Amino acid sequence: MPTIYDISMTIEESMQVWKNYEQKKPKITNVQNHDEGKPHESLLSMNVHTGTHVDAPLHMLAGGDTIETIPLERLVGPARVLDLTHVKEFITKEDLEPFAIQRGERILFKTSSSFSEDFLMDFVFLREDGAKYLADIGIGLVATDALGIERAQAEYPTHRTLMRNDVIIVEGVRLKEVAAGNYSLVIAPLKLTGIDASPARAFLMA
Amino acid sequence: MPTIYDISMTIEESMQVWKNYEQKKPKITNVQNHDEGKPHESLLSMNVHTGTHVDAPLHMLAGGDTIETIPLERLVGPARVLDLTHVKEFITKEDLEPFAIQRGERILFKTSSSFSEDFLMDFVFLREDGAKYLADIGIGLVATDALGIERAQAEYPTHRTLMRNDVIIVEGVRLKEVAAGNYSLVIAPLKLTGIDASPARAFLMA
Repeated sequence: MPTIYDISMTIEESMQVWKNYEQKKPKITNVQNHDEGKPHESLLSMNVHTGTHVDAPLHMLAGGDTIETIPLERLVGPARVLDLTHVKEFITKEDLEPFAIQRGERILFKTSSSFSEDFLMDFVFLREDGAKYLADIGIGLVATDALGIERAQAEYPTHRTLMRNDVIIVEGVRLKEVAAGNYSLVIAPLKLTGIDASPARAFLMA
Repeated sequence: MPTIYDISMTIEESMQVWKNYEQKKPKITNVQNHDEGKPHESLLSMNVHTGTHVDAPLHMLAGGDTIETIPLERLVGPARVLDLTHVKEFITKEDLEPFAIQRGERILFKTSSSFSEDFLMDFVFLREDGAKYLADIGIGLVATDALGIERAQAEYPTHRTLMRNDVIIVEGVRLKEVAAGNYSLVIAPLKLTGIDASPARAFLMA
């Protein structure tokens, strides 16, 4: 039995959300319960970019592909966690070159953003030149432990460069407790269809 | 690379829900989009028992354990799909005995309920004696392709027997396209906490 490392964010009303916007916070409501003589049931209401999630190209590209176009085969398999905790502001091509990243790899960024459970306005992001470098290599997937792969750069060059080059983007993983190295990765988004993202359970096995 | 069989129900507004109740249907709403000059984002609102999902004991037992108490280790690993498509009404102890089910096994019921995408009032369920048989063996998990492991039997003896004996219940898997036999199973519920269930992505690998 392999060891499982859960790298998902817990979904709860008090969790960090993008820029702490009230309308981005999930709501979890009890709709019936044993006191009423009924089974206990809850309603979950959440923006699909909450917590650990997979972005579909539609999120940042008008007319882009939607979430059901990303097959499980792309989200399950060998992966590598890179230690980028020394990076202060943004991840550049120069930061990535020492890792000798290969075509088709699934890459996870462990950054200092995992050290806090609060939303950090200055979270570590992937700069456009770093995104272009990964797109040129032709990696399969990039995951980051920040809530976003970029902050709110004009025209979203990081998202768009990755999406136009068929690199899957996973945001909001939790890597604080995970060492850099090679793992077997599972990213399991809810099976939604026709929309811009899906919340996901994510774990590594070693 | 193993073959992946996605056994999850697609979550969409037109999907089958329990007894076709209007309030159990998920709602998926666009909250911002490219026409407004913003990234495309959607809001998902759903009962946590929608589609493929894991029940926590709290669902049927007052004061029962909540969803975060079920570790991924229980939801990931070897599993067996049983062909029960010949069963007409309910699954009994006698229906299960020929399979020589062992302690700790993860068992998936392939029933005729997978043949329809509509909610069937007369879906095939696990009768109390079948639940007691599985609990006595001490299996780890039972999944069914009906939306429920029982219909609405008074006092919910099937759910309660399984839950009191630490058997995890997964409802609403899709097994129509999957042959009986042995697989590696992944059930990946969203990482919710403190509540009665979680929607999940589920797949088999062979």
